[in-house]
Amino acid sequence: MIYKDKTRPVADRVQDLLQRMTLGEKAGQLVQPFGWQCYEKHPDGTTGMTEAFKRQVAAGGVGSLYGTLRADPWTGVTLETGLSPKQGAEAVNAIQAYAMKESRLGIPILFGEECSHGHMAIGATVFPVPLALGSMWNPELYREMCRVVALETRSQGGAATYSPVLDVVRDPRWGRTEETFGEDPFLIATMGVEAVKGLQGERLDAEDSVLATLKHFAAYGSSEGGRNSAPVHMGLRELHEVDLLPFRKAVEAGALSIMTAYNEIDGVPCTTNRYLLQDVLREQWGFEGFVITDCGALGMLTNGHNTADSGEAAVAQALLAGIDMEMSGEMFEQHIAAAIEHGRLQESDLDRAAARILELKFKLGLFDRPYADPQQAEQIIGKPEHRELARRIAGESIIMLKNENRTLPLSKQIPKLAVIGPNADAPYNQLGDYTSPQPKGAIVTVLEGIRQALGGSADNVLYAPGCRIKGDSREGFAHALACAAEADAVVLAIGGSSARDFGEGTIDLLTGASVVTEHSWSDMECGEGIDRATLNLMGVQLELAQEIHKLGKPLIVVYINGRPIAEPWIAEHADAILEAWYPGQEGGHAVADILFGGVNPSGRLTISIPKHVGQLPVYYYKRRTRGKRYLETDFHAEYPFGYGLSYSEFAYSNLKVEPPVITADGQALVSVDVTNSGDRAGSEVVQLYISDLASSITRPEKQLKGFRKISIQPGDTQTVTFSVGREELEYVSADLTRIVEPGAFAVMAGPHSAEYLTAPLEVREEG
Amino acid sequence: MIYKDKTRPVADRVQDLLQRMTLGEKAGQLVQPFGWQCYEKHPDGTTGMTEAFKRQVAAGGVGSLYGTLRADPWTGVTLETGLSPKQGAEAVNAIQAYAMKESRLGIPILFGEECSHGHMAIGATVFPVPLALGSMWNPELYREMCRVVALETRSQGGAATYSPVLDVVRDPRWGRTEETFGEDPFLIATMGVEAVKGLQGERLDAEDSVLATLKHFAAYGSSEGGRNSAPVHMGLRELHEVDLLPFRKAVEAGALSIMTAYNEIDGVPCTTNRYLLQDVLREQWGFEGFVITDCGALGMLTNGHNTADSGEAAVAQALLAGIDMEMSGEMFEQHIAAAIEHGRLQESDLDRAAARILELKFKLGLFDRPYADPQQAEQIIGKPEHRELARRIAGESIIMLKNENRTLPLSKQIPKLAVIGPNADAPYNQLGDYTSPQPKGAIVTVLEGIRQALGGSADNVLYAPGCRIKGDSREGFAHALACAAEADAVVLAIGGSSARDFGEGTIDLLTGASVVTEHSWSDMECGEGIDRATLNLMGVQLELAQEIHKLGKPLIVVYINGRPIAEPWIAEHADAILEAWYPGQEGGHAVADILFGGVNPSGRLTISIPKHVGQLPVYYYKRRTRGKRYLETDFHAEYPFGYGLSYSEFAYSNLKVEPPVITADGQALVSVDVTNSGDRAGSEVVQLYISDLASSITRPEKQLKGFRKISIQPGDTQTVTFSVGREELEYVSADLTRIVEPGAFAVMAGPHSAEYLTAPLEVREEG
Repeated sequence: MIYKDKTRPVADRVQDLLQRMTLGEKAGQLVQPFGWQCYEKHPDGTTGMTEAFKRQVAAGGVGSLYGTLRADPWTGVTLETGLSPKQGAEAVNAIQAYAMKESRLGIPILFGEECSHGHMAIGATVFPVPLALGSMWNPELYREMCRVVALETRSQGGAATYSPVLDVVRDPRWGRTEETFGEDPFLIATMGVEAVKGLQGERLDAEDSVLATLKHFAAYGSSEGGRNSAPVHMGLRELHEVDLLPFRKAVEAGALSIMTAYNEIDGVPCTTNRYLLQDVLREQWGFEGFVITDCGALGMLTNGHNTADSGEAAVAQALLAGIDMEMSGEMFEQHIAAAIEHGRLQESDLDRAAARILELKFKLGLFDRPYADPQQAEQIIGKPEHRELARRIAGESIIMLKNENRTLPLSKQIPKLAVIGPNADAPYNQLGDYTSPQPKGAIVTVLEGIRQALGGSADNVLYAPGCRIKGDSREGFAHALACAAEADAVVLAIGGSSARDFGEGTIDLLTGASVVTEHSWSDMECGEGIDRATLNLMGVQLELAQEIHKLGKPLIVVYINGRPIAEPWIAEHADAILEAWYPGQEGGHAVADILFGGVNPSGRLTISIPKHVGQLPVYYYKRRTRGKRYLETDFHAEYPFGYGLSYSEFAYSNLKVEPPVITADGQALVSVDVTNSGDRAGSEVVQLYISDLASSITRPEKQLKGFRKISIQPGDTQTVTFSVGREELEYVSADLTRIVEPGAFAVMAGPHSAEYLTAPLEVREEG
Repeated sequence: MIYKDKTRPVADRVQDLLQRMTLGEKAGQLVQPFGWQCYEKHPDGTTGMTEAFKRQVAAGGVGSLYGTLRADPWTGVTLETGLSPKQGAEAVNAIQAYAMKESRLGIPILFGEECSHGHMAIGATVFPVPLALGSMWNPELYREMCRVVALETRSQGGAATYSPVLDVVRDPRWGRTEETFGEDPFLIATMGVEAVKGLQGERLDAEDSVLATLKHFAAYGSSEGGRNSAPVHMGLRELHEVDLLPFRKAVEAGALSIMTAYNEIDGVPCTTNRYLLQDVLREQWGFEGFVITDCGALGMLTNGHNTADSGEAAVAQALLAGIDMEMSGEMFEQHIAAAIEHGRLQESDLDRAAARILELKFKLGLFDRPYADPQQAEQIIGKPEHRELARRIAGESIIMLKNENRTLPLSKQIPKLAVIGPNADAPYNQLGDYTSPQPKGAIVTVLEGIRQALGGSADNVLYAPGCRIKGDSREGFAHALACAAEADAVVLAIGGSSARDFGEGTIDLLTGASVVTEHSWSDMECGEGIDRATLNLMGVQLELAQEIHKLGKPLIVVYINGRPIAEPWIAEHADAILEAWYPGQEGGHAVADILFGGVNPSGRLTISIPKHVGQLPVYYYKRRTRGKRYLETDFHAEYPFGYGLSYSEFAYSNLKVEPPVITADGQALVSVDVTNSGDRAGSEVVQLYISDLASSITRPEKQLKGFRKISIQPGDTQTVTFSVGREELEYVSADLTRIVEPGAFAVMAGPHSAEYLTAPLEVREEG
């Protein structure tokens, strides 16, 4: 049979297979049940199929399974009920074997897994969350991480991932802010391209490649009021210029799967937006992969968006708009056949979607190499080199926001150090949302990292939780203040948490000891579905900081959290501040590396830190007219986009643009000298911003158009060059085409979005 | 000459005049200098022309003058330097005579004045601000007011006004919230239609008619972050459905002048938006008047929006987009001739704009009756009947938000009443922005209104300011608390202020006495250009309320302010709350009328009152999908749109829709019985909301589609009917046309947007 012959072109194999399939078999390719519900774990660690899964296979098949290896409180899969790396690969193989052998045509299942900051399976490496990954401003290192994630995932049979998240955040009230690369479309696009290259690798059918899924298409980061899945109010021009840019770049880089967003834009749900899915994605951008809904999004069409008054209407809208696969809903399964029967859909609509999915399965090599190697999974997943990479990445992502009087780095000879705060020793609080349960000791907390760093002198570390993230109990204050009073400096680890209930119990505020309870005390104040109305520290954390501050000890605040915290008091009174976001399982090591100077901080903000929630939105690339100021405060961020300190100091000079006049298709070379004027080696993120001084459409004051992370020895100077041409100068015009208009531009290079040198560049008409 | 012959058709007169005019004369028609700068007041009260004005007339003429009669701190015109009603009319006549006699063709000037809540000239009646006017939900009474405003304005020669403001507020951080009718497009449209009818009257050339100017076109109430003039992020569909609706309705009602908004929408400044000004306004809506910029908006094109790199480019953009007149800028004057000379504009572009302006001047009768009657101005302006109307309107606009245990109305026999707060006796704080200076005694404060209401017993009123609106001085607390302690109830007048520096000094916090200083203590926290980052009471007002509350006396909070105040503590702990917005010069009487039961409150909110700034936006007609809730609070308003209490109680029953099934062009009659189940007569605002249960574009949960304010005797029942058809059921589709889609609707009738009876209505396909 042609479709089983791997020497035949993929297109032929797809066509051959498709014409053999019944309508039910084709519809089966479009569905993606929850993978963790298709197996049962036996007491001996082996697995069997559930009856429901067997029925689905018998009824026509299952195109894909979602999160078969996923474990977390949301899935209900625990360390006990879940699968080890090896067991996971074995289970996937067993499911795959069942599906292929018990179905008429032997079509393999596409196993799709969550991988936004590490393969979300038990035992896999947990990297920092994307907000931290962006803060590295190191695309190459992020790509290296993506290669590792792909390898860990594919080793267990996972062939598709639901990352990268390319949403552009405009409002950090949104609980998913942590899952994004921040506010800047250029930076997000850059990271998105690396994610595609890293995850998909050279060939999709390689043992270390998985299909990248761009999400959430589109404008999901601009929801009204920062509320998850709420409507988006945005004009088409801005949509193309800002929110679509990262998706376009990632598609151009070869992404072959994309997920629609829950939200609607100007009244049209993204799940049924034919303009986006057909005109823009396929016709303008040439996308050749398939489109998957977000989890249960088709159900929202009848119960939420209400654009459909029946399931049949909903599936017809979605399929006609360009959806190919439904993530973990039952709408396609239940209604496609009837929708065809009643003339709402043609069978050719179904064929088109099924063919796209099958094509990718062939390209992924699933027909020819459907099984994983459990031995390899066991060796690869979470191996020491991967944890070392996680530590290095966390170290590059942590941002030093303040360092008065060189408070940092601390000496390892410090006689007594107090480590205080609800995030000092709370393992899950370091991991962010979309994280699997972890065995004891798998996560290095800040406390543990500091103790290890101080080695023999670690008994000079005093620890007190002080308070919780949420809740108003001050019962831990006394102990915390006693520790602080006794110490020579205080590291205060506060912030937020995206930890769901992992059944880990809580921490005794009086002693810092773990307390096992049936359900955790929930400190969760961030993560999917947890949107906030303020950006303050919750509970009594600020008060704890203020009480400690009164003791007059050097106060080093370490923020561990998933969205910007607006606390001007901390900004004013702490001696030093590190923003670690959720730094992953090696986060404690990374924080300690920076605290004691083993690593020179080089993270930079990818999102503006506001002074108050009432200033929102505060992203840096706002268009020029923006009113005067608020009565209570200005519009500016407390810490601007791109900001971050180093133990070194960097001086900028000699900004040149050559030639200073070009045509719209010309290129200019921008160069700037950066000198390490400090006394130790360090890395600087040289940032290039461009401003179009007059243009027929209003423009932002400035936009990031390039960056380079460079390491410089003390006293040395490096010249950094950027090429500036059409790509950097174009913008989206009123007719939605990208144009470069003749006129004056300003080219800016500097350490962040509010500090730079400026030089002119002029674009002249040809001839 | 044809153009001077009033028996000839206007079109002929325009054409005749136009062909006689030089390019400079035509350009002169498009300019509108500041009117208060064209005259000098002599010691004897007469006026003369300034040299600058004479030069302008000699150079080709002045099409229009802005704010010739306007007086306020912004213009710098005071009670001393400004003009009395009679003097104003005389001055306008003198200016008009000069312009007509000293120019070649004798073209009269169009005098444009501010009239948003009363003719903004010295001595004219000051009505409540539009936010309060909307709160009446009484369009007929508002039209009556507009007739009075037109009469007062025209009596002095003012022939055009810059109202109504039809902006739809989405974010009350915006300082101009007070100038709007609130958040609902249907209500705003209804009021806008009445404004046009009331201001323009039956005939534009009548002695009591002025040209209404719709502003600000468009979407000015949706600026980013509630910042005045900031960019608007909105799709075209929503723009048509929400923000353009009031403008379309007002144009259909005959409005002949419209002002563009400062902001841009999706990158296109409204001042140069040809799609809005030509395609939508003129072609789709058939607008036949002229378009004026906002003050100085053309300058923003080169310095703000930066869509033009020169003055010539800016005026060409504006004129080609459809602008006809420039408000008080100098761009047209300086650059039109050169723009034509250099081929950026054709002379026909100028002709088109000049013809539109001249046409309106003919229609206004300015050529045939150019002069005002100063005697009449003196008799009409601010006459007692007009003040009486202002009191009645204020009484209908005040909203009772809370009345626990029938705290209100107070008995006039109350032994001692404490009247406390920074807004208890602050005349200008009652007037809102865009208000002229007032002679002593022209404004009835809350304190004065209460004293007058209590007549002989007014010595039982204890007064203390307590604190200021802004600032942290508690020096007045002791006196305030002493007054409160001695009293049987406390009326606490707090809130905000849009008062600019009228040189009125301030109030001594210890004694309540006026303190004259060179510059006022500024309590201004609202008004144009004063946007806020929080919605809390400023200064120590909340603390004052909390201190008073501890005394256990009945606490009646009277809010006087220009935007919603989010203070849940007040909502929870005050015994009664009145929201008066800025109630105008008769506000104190109106508040007292309600406090003592002479008027039964019937105002209803036209804007949702949030619980916290971090909930924004909170408008009631949000589309269905809107996330779950914020962690700290839900999405709901503290007080919902349409809400307001009465001393009566109203019960709704018997909601019927007949027939329950109609075609898209059919009509159904909705009826509901409303019973006054209280013990006194009162007015209820019966509100009709409609929900489209499924439609191809996502819809709001509900939308106001009708309301009726009715007076009911105790025990009586009235049946209120609404007609529901295409107009009420249609919405703007993806292709921007208005459609009615077959399907299920819910019809809701009730007292406010969060409480109603519901009945089904079905729209079936024809045949």
